[in-house]
Amino acid sequence: MSHGTSHLVTNIGELVTWAEGRPVLKGAAMVLDGPKVAWVGPAARAPAADTAYDAGGRAVIPGFVDSHSHLVFAGDRSEEFAARMAGESYAAGGIRTTVRATRAATDEQLTSQVARLVHEMRRQGTTTLEIKSGYGLSTLDEARSLAVARQFTEETTFLGAHVVPEGIEPDDYVALVTGQMLERSVPHARWIDVFCETGAFDVDQARTVLKAGIAAGLKPRMHANQLGHGPGVGLACELGLTAVDHCTYLSGDDVAALRDSGTRATLLPGVEFSTRQPYPDARMLIDAGVGVAIASDCNPGSCFTSSIPFCMALAVREMGMTPTEALEAATRGGAAALDRTDVGGLAPGMSADFAILDAPTHLHLAYRPGVPLVSETWLAGRRT
Amino acid sequence: MSHGTSHLVTNIGELVTWAEGRPVLKGAAMVLDGPKVAWVGPAARAPAADTAYDAGGRAVIPGFVDSHSHLVFAGDRSEEFAARMAGESYAAGGIRTTVRATRAATDEQLTSQVARLVHEMRRQGTTTLEIKSGYGLSTLDEARSLAVARQFTEETTFLGAHVVPEGIEPDDYVALVTGQMLERSVPHARWIDVFCETGAFDVDQARTVLKAGIAAGLKPRMHANQLGHGPGVGLACELGLTAVDHCTYLSGDDVAALRDSGTRATLLPGVEFSTRQPYPDARMLIDAGVGVAIASDCNPGSCFTSSIPFCMALAVREMGMTPTEALEAATRGGAAALDRTDVGGLAPGMSADFAILDAPTHLHLAYRPGVPLVSETWLAGRRT
Repeated sequence: MSHGTSHLVTNIGELVTWAEGRPVLKGAAMVLDGPKVAWVGPAARAPAADTAYDAGGRAVIPGFVDSHSHLVFAGDRSEEFAARMAGESYAAGGIRTTVRATRAATDEQLTSQVARLVHEMRRQGTTTLEIKSGYGLSTLDEARSLAVARQFTEETTFLGAHVVPEGIEPDDYVALVTGQMLERSVPHARWIDVFCETGAFDVDQARTVLKAGIAAGLKPRMHANQLGHGPGVGLACELGLTAVDHCTYLSGDDVAALRDSGTRATLLPGVEFSTRQPYPDARMLIDAGVGVAIASDCNPGSCFTSSIPFCMALAVREMGMTPTEALEAATRGGAAALDRTDVGGLAPGMSADFAILDAPTHLHLAYRPGVPLVSETWLAGRRT
Repeated sequence: MSHGTSHLVTNIGELVTWAEGRPVLKGAAMVLDGPKVAWVGPAARAPAADTAYDAGGRAVIPGFVDSHSHLVFAGDRSEEFAARMAGESYAAGGIRTTVRATRAATDEQLTSQVARLVHEMRRQGTTTLEIKSGYGLSTLDEARSLAVARQFTEETTFLGAHVVPEGIEPDDYVALVTGQMLERSVPHARWIDVFCETGAFDVDQARTVLKAGIAAGLKPRMHANQLGHGPGVGLACELGLTAVDHCTYLSGDDVAALRDSGTRATLLPGVEFSTRQPYPDARMLIDAGVGVAIASDCNPGSCFTSSIPFCMALAVREMGMTPTEALEAATRGGAAALDRTDVGGLAPGMSADFAILDAPTHLHLAYRPGVPLVSETWLAGRRT
């Protein structure tokens, strides 16, 4: 008990830890030591602590780890959404609408927007999140987007290679992304990402971007196979990426490559919901031995949900996951997709990041879709 | 200004009134006179009032009118939900599980459960709701279920004819429902309902139940055509019901009958989400000239969502409705399904029941699925 005050959280109806041998405990308690989990086990055997908090029989789950979001933007695309629902199809080019608004926004406006969305996510149980740039698409605007994002998370991702902006040739833009833009973005970023898709970047361009990022000290991740079949997932596996995101259209070779490389498939079912595309087949991936994660992809174009519980409910309804698999994918799976072992579970030594649900078990997150069931979010041992 | 203190709500980014000629106003204000709306119009022309409240540019919409819910129950069926998602199919017989738990519960336990769910609905913008009995299925338990419900709403519905309980022959049960059970339930109910479906009640039994209820002074409504094609919707139209609920499986004759009779189709897409059934075709119904409503069907078996915004997002994604049609169906449509003209809109003279959204327009309710966007709910002119 060296980190500061210890807290006992007791009368936990169900405690999801993901710890080996005891992933889900009933009638449990948890002791926090400062920002970390110090002990989990049966309530009757809980050690003493400085303070006690009664969870009232509710379920306690690890905080969600949302490994894919695009929160740094300005402008409103709700009319485009309504038009799409009335029959227009989604195309990656809509990103450029947001780029114009983002470039015109001040740093303060962008910061205020991110703060609002991060607050919204916290209220819904998300405790770790990744934030990408990708609506600046100029050296200045990408670097300042990342500086804004870095105020809210260490998991920042340079996505200069989101689409080719207006007014520049693709090859010239790739040179810019891998040159000056990368150089100015590196100080604010942990990851580099590329949207490998028809209408965005081809596989050779994607490889060039990722290799430049790796050489500059960033860790690589990718958007791939969202809108159709293609070579993106294959490239992700070839490069040994921690995770590749979307994976909506996969060939048998893609699935085998994911399994063999250990690259995790991050599924973003809110996108398929909001673009009326077919959902990725999580059941098939899990049964094939591929690791999966669920993330929100919160962004103003293809998916403006910030709700991980909503994405989990879709994963169960539409992608064949069990409620427990969906929770694991949205917590431990998200952590693995960010190459993190300190979050995404509630075993001793891990960060005390958790949500208390207005429900007796985690099953209710899928059983009660759309209902805001997260009643408290705790971050590093403190109630937010 | 005769009802008491007047309140000016100003700086409303978008005000949805459904008033003829001005259904949606931008840059609006609204004056409340006690529990009623007294005036709506451009903010610059707002009359004086005793107090003022700044809506901060947010959208204001009529409170949701949820015309179909089953909140009086006990027990937990989340494990049944998880099993269904793993491949088991939904059958009406699962209702009997809840009947056993409901009969065993005290009035206080039932009241506490309804209070919890009504509070949850209020937080999500529902200001008028219907509550059915139907998990008692004995004279005593139906009457006490309705007495519990009546503490929370005037829109109570006697649904003794939910399923035939264990231990009684169907014909004997219909005689009980239309005899002593009806007699004891009438004092606590406004409506009578019957579940006309294979596994529940056939069309002759349904007709018998509804006619007995009408003779006892109740207004008739129905569950029909949820799990397959059948004669239920035809009966609803023949009897001139205000609304018939579910309407998932409709023939061309059913659609023509709905149009010709003016009977409204109440769609419950949360059910199709949580039972993995095909969705009803709202687009076809609207294009055919049939009035529609959206309701939650909040119940522990087939659909345990209390979230009307979630149901609206499904209506847009899965049933071909526009975001504006979905909002209208969940407000004015729900009011019409309950034969009410005092709620479901925000024109002068109507009840001052509304929600303030954390969003600039009502489009965000569908554009941002799963996100708890209702930041304030006002009921009869008071913030709840």
